[in-house]
Amino acid sequence: MNTDTIKKTVRNVPDYPQKGIMFRDLTTVFKDAECLHFLSEWMYKEYKDKGITKIIGIESRGFIMGPILATKLNAGFVPIRKNGKLPAETIKEFYNKEYGTDTMEIHKDALNENDIVLIHDDLLATGGTMQAAYNLVKKFNIKEIYMNFILELTALKGRETLNSEINDKITSLIQY
Amino acid sequence: MNTDTIKKTVRNVPDYPQKGIMFRDLTTVFKDAECLHFLSEWMYKEYKDKGITKIIGIESRGFIMGPILATKLNAGFVPIRKNGKLPAETIKEFYNKEYGTDTMEIHKDALNENDIVLIHDDLLATGGTMQAAYNLVKKFNIKEIYMNFILELTALKGRETLNSEINDKITSLIQY
Repeated sequence: MNTDTIKKTVRNVPDYPQKGIMFRDLTTVFKDAECLHFLSEWMYKEYKDKGITKIIGIESRGFIMGPILATKLNAGFVPIRKNGKLPAETIKEFYNKEYGTDTMEIHKDALNENDIVLIHDDLLATGGTMQAAYNLVKKFNIKEIYMNFILELTALKGRETLNSEINDKITSLIQY
Repeated sequence: MNTDTIKKTVRNVPDYPQKGIMFRDLTTVFKDAECLHFLSEWMYKEYKDKGITKIIGIESRGFIMGPILATKLNAGFVPIRKNGKLPAETIKEFYNKEYGTDTMEIHKDALNENDIVLIHDDLLATGGTMQAAYNLVKKFNIKEIYMNFILELTALKGRETLNSEINDKITSLIQY
């Protein structure tokens, strides 16, 4: 079991969600116990010495590996959710999507100044979603922010899109 | 740290998502590393001897504890998602919600006949969502199906609503 095994286990779905897009489907990886174990060990090794106190997962595919890493690091888990899904007081961030704008939210009491945070999502594409999540987390004046993805579509230049101060804090397991 | 600590850490949000509803918000539990650890240990102890091969999480709050338990049990993780969110061939189930009907989906290759499955969601209310998930999983003719919730709103009689053959396969940590 290694990174190549994971890459071979990812299902490639042509023309989803629209014509011309090759969708990288991780459900075939998550349903395989050995692959899931490999992913969680990889994330753990990358972040075990960073003093991370909270893992943030971006709804909803970032909810899968985020909580696993949180328990392994003995950290808490915090969701960033779509508009209107969090019940208590939130901070919002608006961001551009291919068609129109979207909104994401985090609870106002989710983080504090002493936190060291990892934001996790399954996929880095154009970087728009992660940039918005980063902007949101920045508002808490926390100590340090790391970012992690399982897959990175390098042709879409997500790393270049992301703010330069973020760039050296990003890891991904598999690049396409 | 015990069940009472978890119950005290749950945030009670009045009139959400609508007037008259007391929403039980688990984000205050998940963000606390000790609470998250307690929850994962409780789930692990409940299910470690059942031979479970796959954990199914119902989108999206069932995605948080479901994957944690999957790694602890050395099982795979399978998502049940809202309509149109899974990229490959799916099986669908329609179910009634308070206003109109909704659809959930699972990938057609997600399970096989030899699987022993636990379906996890954060909350048992009327039981409609879990009954639909159960119906969906039943179609795979798998060996055994367990169900697990963190919270159970007993006044809504979810257990009674659920098919009687399911009833003795349900566990919940906290009852209201």
